[in-house]
Amino acid sequence: MITKENIWEHNFAHEELHKRQLDHLATSLTDQGIVVEDLLKKLDDFQIAIPSWALGTGGTRFGRFPEGGEPRSLDEKIEDVGLLHQLSGSCNAISLHIPWDIPDDAQAIKSLANSFGLKFDAVNSNTFQDQPNASFSYKFGSLCHVDKAVREEAIAHNKSVIDHGVSLGSKALTVWLADGSNFPGQHNFREALKRTQESLEEIYAYLPGDWHMLIEYKPYEPNFYSMVIPDWGTSHLLASQLGEKALSLVDLGHHLPNTNIEQIVAILMMREKLGGFHFNDSKYGDDDLTTGSLKPYQLFLIFNELIDGTEHTGNPPLSWMIDASHNLKDPLEDLLQAVEAIKIAYAQALIVNRLNLEEAQRKNDVARAQQILQDAFRTDVRPLVAASRLRQGGVFDPVTVYRQLEIRKNLIQKRGTKTISTGL
Amino acid sequence: MITKENIWEHNFAHEELHKRQLDHLATSLTDQGIVVEDLLKKLDDFQIAIPSWALGTGGTRFGRFPEGGEPRSLDEKIEDVGLLHQLSGSCNAISLHIPWDIPDDAQAIKSLANSFGLKFDAVNSNTFQDQPNASFSYKFGSLCHVDKAVREEAIAHNKSVIDHGVSLGSKALTVWLADGSNFPGQHNFREALKRTQESLEEIYAYLPGDWHMLIEYKPYEPNFYSMVIPDWGTSHLLASQLGEKALSLVDLGHHLPNTNIEQIVAILMMREKLGGFHFNDSKYGDDDLTTGSLKPYQLFLIFNELIDGTEHTGNPPLSWMIDASHNLKDPLEDLLQAVEAIKIAYAQALIVNRLNLEEAQRKNDVARAQQILQDAFRTDVRPLVAASRLRQGGVFDPVTVYRQLEIRKNLIQKRGTKTISTGL
Amino acid sequence: MITKENIWEHNFAHEELHKRQLDHLATSLTDQGIVVEDLLKKLDDFQIAIPSWALGTGGTRFGRFPEGGEPRSLDEKIEDVGLLHQLSGSCNAISLHIPWDIPDDAQAIKSLANSFGLKFDAVNSNTFQDQPNASFSYKFGSLCHVDKAVREEAIAHNKSVIDHGVSLGSKALTVWLADGSNFPGQHNFREALKRTQESLEEIYAYLPGDWHMLIEYKPYEPNFYSMVIPDWGTSHLLASQLGEKALSLVDLGHHLPNTNIEQIVAILMMREKLGGFHFNDSKYGDDDLTTGSLKPYQLFLIFNELIDGTEHTGNPPLSWMIDASHNLKDPLEDLLQAVEAIKIAYAQALIVNRLNLEEAQRKNDVARAQQILQDAFRTDVRPLVAASRLRQGGVFDPVTVYRQLEIRKNLIQKRGTKTISTGL
Amino acid sequence: MITKENIWEHNFAHEELHKRQLDHLATSLTDQGIVVEDLLKKLDDFQIAIPSWALGTGGTRFGRFPEGGEPRSLDEKIEDVGLLHQLSGSCNAISLHIPWDIPDDAQAIKSLANSFGLKFDAVNSNTFQDQPNASFSYKFGSLCHVDKAVREEAIAHNKSVIDHGVSLGSKALTVWLADGSNFPGQHNFREALKRTQESLEEIYAYLPGDWHMLIEYKPYEPNFYSMVIPDWGTSHLLASQLGEKALSLVDLGHHLPNTNIEQIVAILMMREKLGGFHFNDSKYGDDDLTTGSLKPYQLFLIFNELIDGTEHTGNPPLSWMIDASHNLKDPLEDLLQAVEAIKIAYAQALIVNRLNLEEAQRKNDVARAQQILQDAFRTDVRPLVAASRLRQGGVFDPVTVYRQLEIRKNLIQKRGTKTISTGL
Repeated sequence: MITKENIWEHNFAHEELHKRQLDHLATSLTDQGIVVEDLLKKLDDFQIAIPSWALGTGGTRFGRFPEGGEPRSLDEKIEDVGLLHQLSGSCNAISLHIPWDIPDDAQAIKSLANSFGLKFDAVNSNTFQDQPNASFSYKFGSLCHVDKAVREEAIAHNKSVIDHGVSLGSKALTVWLADGSNFPGQHNFREALKRTQESLEEIYAYLPGDWHMLIEYKPYEPNFYSMVIPDWGTSHLLASQLGEKALSLVDLGHHLPNTNIEQIVAILMMREKLGGFHFNDSKYGDDDLTTGSLKPYQLFLIFNELIDGTEHTGNPPLSWMIDASHNLKDPLEDLLQAVEAIKIAYAQALIVNRLNLEEAQRKNDVARAQQILQDAFRTDVRPLVAASRLRQGGVFDPVTVYRQLEIRKNLIQKRGTKTISTGL
Repeated sequence: MITKENIWEHNFAHEELHKRQLDHLATSLTDQGIVVEDLLKKLDDFQIAIPSWALGTGGTRFGRFPEGGEPRSLDEKIEDVGLLHQLSGSCNAISLHIPWDIPDDAQAIKSLANSFGLKFDAVNSNTFQDQPNASFSYKFGSLCHVDKAVREEAIAHNKSVIDHGVSLGSKALTVWLADGSNFPGQHNFREALKRTQESLEEIYAYLPGDWHMLIEYKPYEPNFYSMVIPDWGTSHLLASQLGEKALSLVDLGHHLPNTNIEQIVAILMMREKLGGFHFNDSKYGDDDLTTGSLKPYQLFLIFNELIDGTEHTGNPPLSWMIDASHNLKDPLEDLLQAVEAIKIAYAQALIVNRLNLEEAQRKNDVARAQQILQDAFRTDVRPLVAASRLRQGGVFDPVTVYRQLEIRKNLIQKRGTKTISTGL
Repeated sequence: MITKENIWEHNFAHEELHKRQLDHLATSLTDQGIVVEDLLKKLDDFQIAIPSWALGTGGTRFGRFPEGGEPRSLDEKIEDVGLLHQLSGSCNAISLHIPWDIPDDAQAIKSLANSFGLKFDAVNSNTFQDQPNASFSYKFGSLCHVDKAVREEAIAHNKSVIDHGVSLGSKALTVWLADGSNFPGQHNFREALKRTQESLEEIYAYLPGDWHMLIEYKPYEPNFYSMVIPDWGTSHLLASQLGEKALSLVDLGHHLPNTNIEQIVAILMMREKLGGFHFNDSKYGDDDLTTGSLKPYQLFLIFNELIDGTEHTGNPPLSWMIDASHNLKDPLEDLLQAVEAIKIAYAQALIVNRLNLEEAQRKNDVARAQQILQDAFRTDVRPLVAASRLRQGGVFDPVTVYRQLEIRKNLIQKRGTKTISTGL
Repeated sequence: MITKENIWEHNFAHEELHKRQLDHLATSLTDQGIVVEDLLKKLDDFQIAIPSWALGTGGTRFGRFPEGGEPRSLDEKIEDVGLLHQLSGSCNAISLHIPWDIPDDAQAIKSLANSFGLKFDAVNSNTFQDQPNASFSYKFGSLCHVDKAVREEAIAHNKSVIDHGVSLGSKALTVWLADGSNFPGQHNFREALKRTQESLEEIYAYLPGDWHMLIEYKPYEPNFYSMVIPDWGTSHLLASQLGEKALSLVDLGHHLPNTNIEQIVAILMMREKLGGFHFNDSKYGDDDLTTGSLKPYQLFLIFNELIDGTEHTGNPPLSWMIDASHNLKDPLEDLLQAVEAIKIAYAQALIVNRLNLEEAQRKNDVARAQQILQDAFRTDVRPLVAASRLRQGGVFDPVTVYRQLEIRKNLIQKRGTKTISTGL
């Protein structure tokens, strides 16, 4: 839908502005001893996966207000991610959710994705909704269920998700369990965790040699008294006992009020057990709002740990993924805003003066340590992010181009107003 | 479905046990100077409304696992509440949600309700979901909407809800607004509240002379950055400016973490502006769990304020209603458990030695004040609650009778497994 | 301690850098239609009061680790604020706490303050600690106390604080009450609030005609079950009933987890009842950390409301004050960092494109509304803040100058290492 | 201070009442198949340690309001605990804090304790306050400090605490670290944790063969951005790596809002790594209020897990200790109220019908599982707790006896009003 000419015209119109801004920033950074080209390379390489379920309008238990033009098939989901990648140059992967996204013809799907420059990130299993032809219900849990037959169905489903992933070239399975309890007494906490561990062991044994299992945690919802894997401690316990291929996955919204998430990131990387990230933002709980829209400084601090951990630990490379719900905004615009916020936070964290920070820490110079982080965060790094985007073939201002080309209108014309993307 | 004989048999079988327990408790209470008959009368009179939307299986944004036998019509909802009232003797009213429960023939519906001894409590408007034939969408708000036409549709809807309520004999309109914003910048807080106030003024002007308007508040969900009426302060501001017939409604789940709800209850009653209650319980947020299942002492403390406020202020009589979601339990069992917990808390609060408490407060005898409340709470008042239930024609143990008579099985046979009650 | 030459040298050394940065920013802003000189004037005028109690090292209930050189007297406190004002050009007032800061000779103190260009902001009463010669204890409350004699002592103290304030030229009394309860039953919420209101009425009646009373609220600490004025709703209730001169004061740390403070600010201004601000930051509760060190975007959003409210409501001019505790950092460095963060947030909020924002709100263009705020926040406005500081006679980089001149070392030499500033 | 005659008189006066209540309860329990004598034995055996620092009046950073008569020495602290044990029969141990409670003559202290039937529970080290003759400050941490010399001082202190403990017959060292940071950047999370682990390894190596090290965790305070050991996950990580003698200690107040503490207890016991408990209660944070005064149902649920874990895991025997602050109440009365609440919760948990609960769990009968726990909790077990207390030589109603004998008045006469017990 977007031609090279569209891109060229837009970028050309902003060329002068961009150059002036970038020059100013580059001078500043160079004065600080930073090699701008190194920065740009890191930004170029930083790619964020788009989850297939975030391409449609989300909602709450109270209602859902779709705008139309949502992808009706896996093919159309891939097209949407392709469009995001074309504009931003930063989304070279899609993360699928099975059974919502079972590929009929894996080879054809791979080719399609390939034509957009896309790869397949972690595949996600779903044992929190009953499937039409299922023998058993997950009402009372899946991998933790008291009934072995239900657990086996859930295990088999996870194995089949791995199979689908293998066929597409994925290298990781993300397991998020909605298992938990609503009332005291419902679960024997210990037994529920033991059964979950045993189920995960079976799935783990089925993992291909070059795969990882990413174990997500969440303190509440859909269960409101306890979740079987409520916190990083439990996720890490499971990952440690399963083996090297099992890692913890951090979703920013899955924490109790006031949790210091950046510290969790640091400790998991110290243990070399952080597997990936689900980006979003929140004010109250698992609000699934656009990344960076509420707590941009926290996002920066998390990237600060990620960079530090990458440099100083043997933690394996991480999976980056957005996991948000777009209840009021156009999903594609929302995702573009999220990608921008993530890259800004990453760029800010890259320009932290780490030598000075280490010195300040060594001297317990608290005021200076704070200042060093704030200096990086207060820097307007948008020109850098734009420069990297342009190098990747993207556009100077993705949302503006998206609007000027009336892409949503086109999608609605093509797909209709009543389309509902599978997902939440 | 439950015959008088069923009831008699069950109660007869437990007569001796009940008598022994009640005698022991009555002796204890009498020794403390409490007139047991007065207590029982108060318990008899305490009736809790059942909301029509709580009769079906609820869910979260992730899934919904209905068990079957849910009421398919307003008639069947009334039958279900009749059944709860028959068993518990404490649910003599139903609260309807429009447009889910529009009565085709108000007179017939009233007669049906009457045959079960039921009245119609507050009617609830719904401007948080789009209606099939609506001209406008509530995606971006209803009474607060920037577009006057949308506000007018929402106002007209509320007026029509009042009309339906009048036809059924209701005396109150409950307004819960899902209006709010998901991101900073979306709303001008001030303007959104002003528009809301103006809309409420129009609805208020339409209220019959003997009606109340109950204004609910909630800090978040379905919007995750701001709600137009987030807290008791805003609800009270609106109610004060609207006039005497406008009151605040407290839903236990609608508070930020750690809120002292009992204090809010006390202050609203001091202002003579508390209109009613939505009972439920929660561990994390608006979890809508069974009342008393997580924080029974908080429930007791709230009743302690309600009794104190009723005795010492001119606050108008309150509307009591359960507002819960039954995701995993049979809705009718869940409601019976809630009614029991509410009456236990009420009974415990009734036996607080208020003279001693006042004395302890006057003397700043903190340890004794705490002890006085704990003494009441630690008393096993279940025999009293059972005695009142029996006086009202109910059964000794409602859930047990419900199970022994296999009522859910009967309902499924009659209504089918795939029935879905309107509601959340 | 800081000579004009010191200042000139430092500023001269950074002149070129500053000019380059300012020029770049000014070009950008001018391109957006912003008149930079107007911005600078607003920044010049924005002055933040320093509380006398923040000049010493703070602590927690566990310990306190002072660094030395703390002011030993009111004179020395004024000197310290003078120094902050000299460096930052933004702290032209001091806020006193009585009885910690009773001036022996008000005229002399005024002259001293005047010599530093300082005024006296709101005076603060203290009824949360027992005074050596007090007749009564505030252990069980002050203005809310069940015993009239204690209330009268607290009322008399507040009146005497007003007297001291009058003698120094203050125009406001800030009332923060530590009154509350630790256990259910200790307080009758209603009676405690009534007594508080009556006590405040007496103090209010004593206020000079051109004074304001600022009523602070706080949900917990030093009492851990209830506070008599726990939230903005209660503060506003009291202020409304007292009269026009009574206003609410918002302390950023005095809120339950996840509270939307910017919305409270907006609503209080809509009611024309916001009186002032206590700046600090926090991650968990009333942490009293340096403003802007944890949630800079929230600070920006609050300023966004303050500016909007100032333009569109009749709210009286606000009192701005820092209220922080410096447990680990040099108090003066910490205050300089806070002033910088506050002015940055203010400058960012000043450049929000309000016309565009209103249009986006009118059109429910959520993505654009978010973007407009983020565009302002992501702008590096430090050159503007520095420019205003230089116009006010301050220095390019206050903390650096403070360190280069070894001011703390000088203060320790002059005042000793064991000095303990009165306060918390 | 309390004679055998005092006790006899009081108990005799309540004998009839007690007998009636106990008989009624015993009949009820026996009907449910519970062997009352077994229950009583378990209650008899359940002993709770009193921390030496809880015998004086506590406070907040804002103030402290002591009542007088506080113990001035270790001897007097032991006398106070002796008195609590005499009244309650449930406090046969004291937990010391070094350096507040260094015994001059360990043998004499042991004899004194022995004369009251007291043992020495876990000893606690203190590296959160600077000691008068210390070479280094803990301002910036102790076991985590960047400076090896400070760490060595803290390690040496812990070793000396072990020595003191050995001399008194203790068998455990409790380590609570106030180490943490107030601002982002201050700490390198990873390095701080690594240094802490290394320091703990040195202390661990010094532990006698039959000792345990109990590692406490806390999310915030006295540091308000990060704590080195913020959560059970980190505590467990350290305990796992240190070895068999290292265990986690749960303090009820040391959790983020809404944490499911009972689940943490269950998982730590499943790992056989729970070492002990600090009892208190809270509404907002680490409020250190009387155990059971705010969330009695949570306390019951925790005991439910403790009993289940004790029966079904190989977790070592636990250390039970109160850790509360008495700001407004007489510390001894407060402790008596805490002991009562703890024993009530324990007794309620003991009568949970575990066979039925397991069956309900197996069948996913959520309503019944909830009911089984509520049935136990709603039972008035005070007669059982009283019966056990009487069997242990204690009194029917400890607080009443304490008041009737005017013990506080006696203590004030003996010790003065201005005594300040060491501690917080």
